[in-house]
Amino acid sequence: MWGCLCISEVFVLLVEPKYSGNVGFIARLMANFDVNHLYLINPCTLDDEAYRRSMHASDLLHQATIFSSFREAIQGMDFLVGTSAVETISEKKHLRNPVYLEDMADKLQEVEGKIGLVFGREDYGLFNDELAACDIMVKIPTSSQYPSLNLSHAVCLLLYAVYRRNQGMPRTRRTIGSLEREKLFDFFADILEEIRYPEHKKEKTSIMFRRIMGRALPSTWEYHTLMGVLGKTLERLKEKKQ
Amino acid sequence: MWGCLCISEVFVLLVEPKYSGNVGFIARLMANFDVNHLYLINPCTLDDEAYRRSMHASDLLHQATIFSSFREAIQGMDFLVGTSAVETISEKKHLRNPVYLEDMADKLQEVEGKIGLVFGREDYGLFNDELAACDIMVKIPTSSQYPSLNLSHAVCLLLYAVYRRNQGMPRTRRTIGSLEREKLFDFFADILEEIRYPEHKKEKTSIMFRRIMGRALPSTWEYHTLMGVLGKTLERLKEKKQ
Repeated sequence: MWGCLCISEVFVLLVEPKYSGNVGFIARLMANFDVNHLYLINPCTLDDEAYRRSMHASDLLHQATIFSSFREAIQGMDFLVGTSAVETISEKKHLRNPVYLEDMADKLQEVEGKIGLVFGREDYGLFNDELAACDIMVKIPTSSQYPSLNLSHAVCLLLYAVYRRNQGMPRTRRTIGSLEREKLFDFFADILEEIRYPEHKKEKTSIMFRRIMGRALPSTWEYHTLMGVLGKTLERLKEKKQ
Repeated sequence: MWGCLCISEVFVLLVEPKYSGNVGFIARLMANFDVNHLYLINPCTLDDEAYRRSMHASDLLHQATIFSSFREAIQGMDFLVGTSAVETISEKKHLRNPVYLEDMADKLQEVEGKIGLVFGREDYGLFNDELAACDIMVKIPTSSQYPSLNLSHAVCLLLYAVYRRNQGMPRTRRTIGSLEREKLFDFFADILEEIRYPEHKKEKTSIMFRRIMGRALPSTWEYHTLMGVLGKTLERLKEKKQ
């Protein structure tokens, strides 16, 4: 059975981040995606640059928990997801069987308890003992020409995946009752009638219109607006005959 | 006919980017995800900061094409995807039925020709006329508490989605040249004129029609058939006046 991915149990762990701007961007991203816990292991100084980049998420920086060792930081975590922006040699070794980003959120849904997303150093990624502590390694597919992402962009992709899974992934809106839809199709058919559209093409063209609407999935407002245009057109076409 | 989302036909268009660091990050992201064409419309100066952030993708900055107007930049584009890191009021209005990020790549797979990913200003997003030119608007779901993403992170999510789809399975290709498409939109606008559609609603309704078509991605045959219906309708409406 699958549980839900509980975002309040997600922690971001940055291992020895070197650029304070990155830490600031990451705080902002956490706020963008409703993740609240930031753990920093031997970070750079959180200077003005960090606070500037964090924008309205400076609280997350203030409240960040700072650790002096990785071991200490991961105490109390129930599941560790490892990743890093650069792919180091030792990581390659541990990455023999990585989970692709797209599959990560599925995995996390099955986990209960505190989930730590562990991000390595900008330059050296994660060291062997850190890699070894991770329950899964995530692979973000990138160009073979230039694979290494900026740290904050790697965090962005992971947090977005987690956030979306937590929401249950609502997708593009599809709507409207079938009665209203039929009315729109009737209007279209009536217009074909009024413009003396060739009889043998009528059915095919009506079906085409239905298919176009089926793919576009108009919202209620769009349906009503379109109905307004077609209705008015029909009215004017009919006036002509009188 | 089968097409794939051809990444070599994807262009990143930044409208009046204000922070050179963002432009640099975006160049790096483009290299990370194999996208090569960068169009800049009235950008900030590309200073050291931009080149530092672009890391090994400085070539993309050097080769960026700079335009002084949006209109000029989008000439030759066949399909425009609008998005912005901030959601402005005018955007909200136009965003009534946006396509979610996850569904965008599906849509783009069906498009043939040059695809422009249009990103608005860091502070004001896209203006009305720019929004109106876009075939679809993409929504990146974010926290209601702090919805606005940094520009480079919005670009990151879109480029990753495009990159991954480009690696994926082929799909049935639909679509048509931009000239023919514009003709269909002209017909629609002319019909609004003929039926004395309320002046203050005209623009909004025309944009709605463009978005419906943008989501439906009609085939060439469907376009021509629809054009036939609208053309004939227009003709009959005009006859009335004589």
